[in-house]
Amino acid sequence: MKLSIIGVGLIGGSIALKLKEKKIVDFVCGIDNSQDNLNEALALNIIDEKADLEDGIKNSDVIIIAIPVDATRKILPKVLDLMSDSQTVMDVGSTKAGIVESVKNHARRSRFVAFHPMWGTENNGPKSAIAESFSGKAGVICNREESAQDAIKMVETIVESLDMHTIFMNAEAHDLHTAYISHISHITSYALANTVLEKEKEEDTIFQLASSGFSSTVRLAKSHPEMWVPIFKQNKENVLDVLNEHISQLKKFKSALEKENFEYLGELIENANKIRGILDK
Amino acid sequence: MKLSIIGVGLIGGSIALKLKEKKIVDFVCGIDNSQDNLNEALALNIIDEKADLEDGIKNSDVIIIAIPVDATRKILPKVLDLMSDSQTVMDVGSTKAGIVESVKNHARRSRFVAFHPMWGTENNGPKSAIAESFSGKAGVICNREESAQDAIKMVETIVESLDMHTIFMNAEAHDLHTAYISHISHITSYALANTVLEKEKEEDTIFQLASSGFSSTVRLAKSHPEMWVPIFKQNKENVLDVLNEHISQLKKFKSALEKENFEYLGELIENANKIRGILDK
Repeated sequence: MKLSIIGVGLIGGSIALKLKEKKIVDFVCGIDNSQDNLNEALALNIIDEKADLEDGIKNSDVIIIAIPVDATRKILPKVLDLMSDSQTVMDVGSTKAGIVESVKNHARRSRFVAFHPMWGTENNGPKSAIAESFSGKAGVICNREESAQDAIKMVETIVESLDMHTIFMNAEAHDLHTAYISHISHITSYALANTVLEKEKEEDTIFQLASSGFSSTVRLAKSHPEMWVPIFKQNKENVLDVLNEHISQLKKFKSALEKENFEYLGELIENANKIRGILDK
Repeated sequence: MKLSIIGVGLIGGSIALKLKEKKIVDFVCGIDNSQDNLNEALALNIIDEKADLEDGIKNSDVIIIAIPVDATRKILPKVLDLMSDSQTVMDVGSTKAGIVESVKNHARRSRFVAFHPMWGTENNGPKSAIAESFSGKAGVICNREESAQDAIKMVETIVESLDMHTIFMNAEAHDLHTAYISHISHITSYALANTVLEKEKEEDTIFQLASSGFSSTVRLAKSHPEMWVPIFKQNKENVLDVLNEHISQLKKFKSALEKENFEYLGELIENANKIRGILDK
């Protein structure tokens, strides 16, 4: 099978590596605005050839779009225009409603499968790509009824080859749940980094004292704006809703401390501890 | 050298394991309110003998107090009362000013070294103890001038044996910095867990979709109130100060989203990205 990757970064690169390793794919074409990324991906054997959009699509059975969600919305209709009815295109974006909406009335809509692998790191670029990244994680397929059965089948094969398990969901539900599970974590982490950078003027002290706890909470704050501004933009309403709730939860801690109500503080923490039972099932 | 550990949990247990492995310590006495903890620590070879406070102190060269910070404040004067001038006691608490204050005028103050290893996990109990825990992390000694030189020397030897590097700081500075670097991370993580538990009623969806990003941000929310309520209590003013700043940082994200000022949102994220340069020095 021949694969084209539009955006040879962390996610696109990791998928290509794994599918080559599993011998599902025997040729990978890379399409990217950045020549540096393409050259790096070639050198790392992530892709076998550079191509422009037209040639890349022509020479592939499956096309994976792995670029920021706003750019995905723009390029997806063009990709469908260039495709035949025997090809499949999937994306990997962290928001789904806007992307699905952008091709709702496209004549070739059924060749597109809206996909989101529940994995990522704060790093980017082909050099960050790791074949084993997705192992054991969930892969969400949205609005399956809008895709052709053979296209869904193709994506399911890819998801299995990535050692992921498939979850089906509609795009609106996906965007709501990811606001809770993923997008708010990033805002929290960014705001925590900004708090520490604002309050702690002694950078060396941050570096010297930073424990594994701090590093893990603030890890996501290293994630790049090129990827995350579009996600927050596309999922604005859900993210704002969860962010408001988060601020009011923080105010409960503030109030408990101010009033020295340490019993209530203990209750807030005990409630938070319930996440253990859910995450460690 | 003979060691007594008051509180054979995660931290006390991990220290004992490492010091035995390094052969700095050849006998460990365990003192704990929980018989279960003591039996577990015996079975895991963390301690060699159970003891009550009086016998444990009598039979040791060094005593390490590894219990919640409010309990440390209470027990420390009693421990000093029972000690001779050739023995050394150290604590491992995450707040230092209150503990140092509690023995300020004690006749045997100089036998105490106020210590804080910058490591911990969300787990507790002897079974969570790991000898390699502290490797490469900072160990903070506070108010060194209030301790006898030989007591400081002894603690430095222990810190080196734990493969940590020593930082000296006064207790007030320590409490301020840990509010930034550690305590606020815990509140953020607790509040994030409570946000998700409040908004996301579909527990199975949390479990299925939770990515590594969410898990790492919310990891600290598993930490127990028995340990953390006393820390927040003892460091109330600093924690409140940082918490207020954190809430106002979150409100900047909220405002940027509400006003659809995505340029500003990008700037906030770019600023947060600076933490990469500080943490990855």
